[in-house]
Amino acid sequence: MKISAIVTLKKDVLDPQGKVVQQALKGMGFDNVKEIRQGKYFEIDVDENDKKKAEKKAEEMCKKLLANLVIEDFKIIGSQ
Amino acid sequence: MKISAIVTLKKDVLDPQGKVVQQALKGMGFDNVKEIRQGKYFEIDVDENDKKKAEKKAEEMCKKLLANLVIEDFKIIGSQ
Repeated sequence: MKISAIVTLKKDVLDPQGKVVQQALKGMGFDNVKEIRQGKYFEIDVDENDKKKAEKKAEEMCKKLLANLVIEDFKIIGSQ
Repeated sequence: MKISAIVTLKKDVLDPQGKVVQQALKGMGFDNVKEIRQGKYFEIDVDENDKKKAEKKAEEMCKKLLANLVIEDFKIIGSQ
């Protein structure tokens, strides 16, 4: 089962990478972009058929390795 | 309006970063992970209230800057 998770910087944490992307877009003519924040996306293929259990596993992975909970949030966004 | 987009490597493109994450997880005891692929996540805040138009703009940004279409795919996954 494939679980999708995203890890994003917390709201109050500065995101210089996103800022640069925003400036680049502005330079290309996209001037109605208010803000861009960049994060990480993970597609985790777990050897588990039960959706609940697979999501639980993915959540645990996010907590233990994929996200730095001091400055980042994570969200399981789907499974298939 | 905030548009969420993800950019992932195409299926046939090797993802060494994901591989390393998978090995790290294995070392931590998560041994039922078949594969992990990592991608990028963008939260784009566009100054546009029409959902269709905002998504169109975000799509254009992905095509022109955020994704390298030779090796990457992108997907608009939501808006709020």
